[in-house]
Amino acid sequence: MDLRNKIRSVQNFPKEGIDFKDITTLLKDKEAFKECIKQMANKFKNEKIDIIVGAEARGFIIGAPLAYELNAGFVPVRKLGKLPSDTIKYEYELEYGTDTLEMHKDAISKGNRVLIVDDLLATGGTSYSVAKMVETLGGEVVGFDFLIELEFLNGREVLKGYKVESIIKY
Amino acid sequence: MDLRNKIRSVQNFPKEGIDFKDITTLLKDKEAFKECIKQMANKFKNEKIDIIVGAEARGFIIGAPLAYELNAGFVPVRKLGKLPSDTIKYEYELEYGTDTLEMHKDAISKGNRVLIVDDLLATGGTSYSVAKMVETLGGEVVGFDFLIELEFLNGREVLKGYKVESIIKY
Repeated sequence: MDLRNKIRSVQNFPKEGIDFKDITTLLKDKEAFKECIKQMANKFKNEKIDIIVGAEARGFIIGAPLAYELNAGFVPVRKLGKLPSDTIKYEYELEYGTDTLEMHKDAISKGNRVLIVDDLLATGGTSYSVAKMVETLGGEVVGFDFLIELEFLNGREVLKGYKVESIIKY
Repeated sequence: MDLRNKIRSVQNFPKEGIDFKDITTLLKDKEAFKECIKQMANKFKNEKIDIIVGAEARGFIIGAPLAYELNAGFVPVRKLGKLPSDTIKYEYELEYGTDTLEMHKDAISKGNRVLIVDDLLATGGTSYSVAKMVETLGGEVVGFDFLIELEFLNGREVLKGYKVESIIKY
């Protein structure tokens, strides 16, 4: 199955000049959705993953079924103020200003083997922030698993030293 | 397995007087996460579900693995401005003011058998809004499947006439 054909390109979203990769056309197709999770799971099926971490919001759509398939737990990383218990915070730079991600302090146990999942690897900034939080909590980042990788943005460079996998590349 | 024991109650979140049901303690437990998706899937496994619809953001964490387990597609309902293609909108009342949900117009095909999924049934307002959008697009709402139901808020009354299931009740 050609999963790339299931993705819709939307020009100038969310702003002028961006060629947005819309995965909703893949997700609604039951065969394509199943196939993409299975392919992503295959990349790490022998790695004894304890926890999959996904960031709000599209990281939840890919990360949660991947956790289910790999028999792992799922941990959400959220925008500031959404998690109810004690958190660690990570502030990262945006084009203009900063944004802050949060994760529950009790989300990861020391030595947990953690896989970080998202729909898209672009510049790698969000994924790097998540890895630093996981490591601060004592988790071992086994790698990163993406549905789509925008190779021309070279996010792999930011994630150098980690295992990085993706199943659709542009 | 007592799934209820895996849920953490956090008092006065997000505001004074609210007893917040925190599902992150369940999600990170791989056995509990697997069990909750399997129990939720069992409620609708003979209903030939084509599409599962889940609303941002916790509805993604439960809805996507349920779609995977039931061999269905997954359709996200998002807050205003997040979806890149043509949408229908549904404005609903909050305690103060209103909020707007969006769904892609091409997300549902006429006659699709649709299951609406969320982590929590409270007043039922969001779930009702999602059902109306699905029906506007020609989908058949087969039912609602919730992880948690706050029975004292009587959300079932708002969803009267539909099949409503939940696996943990308070």
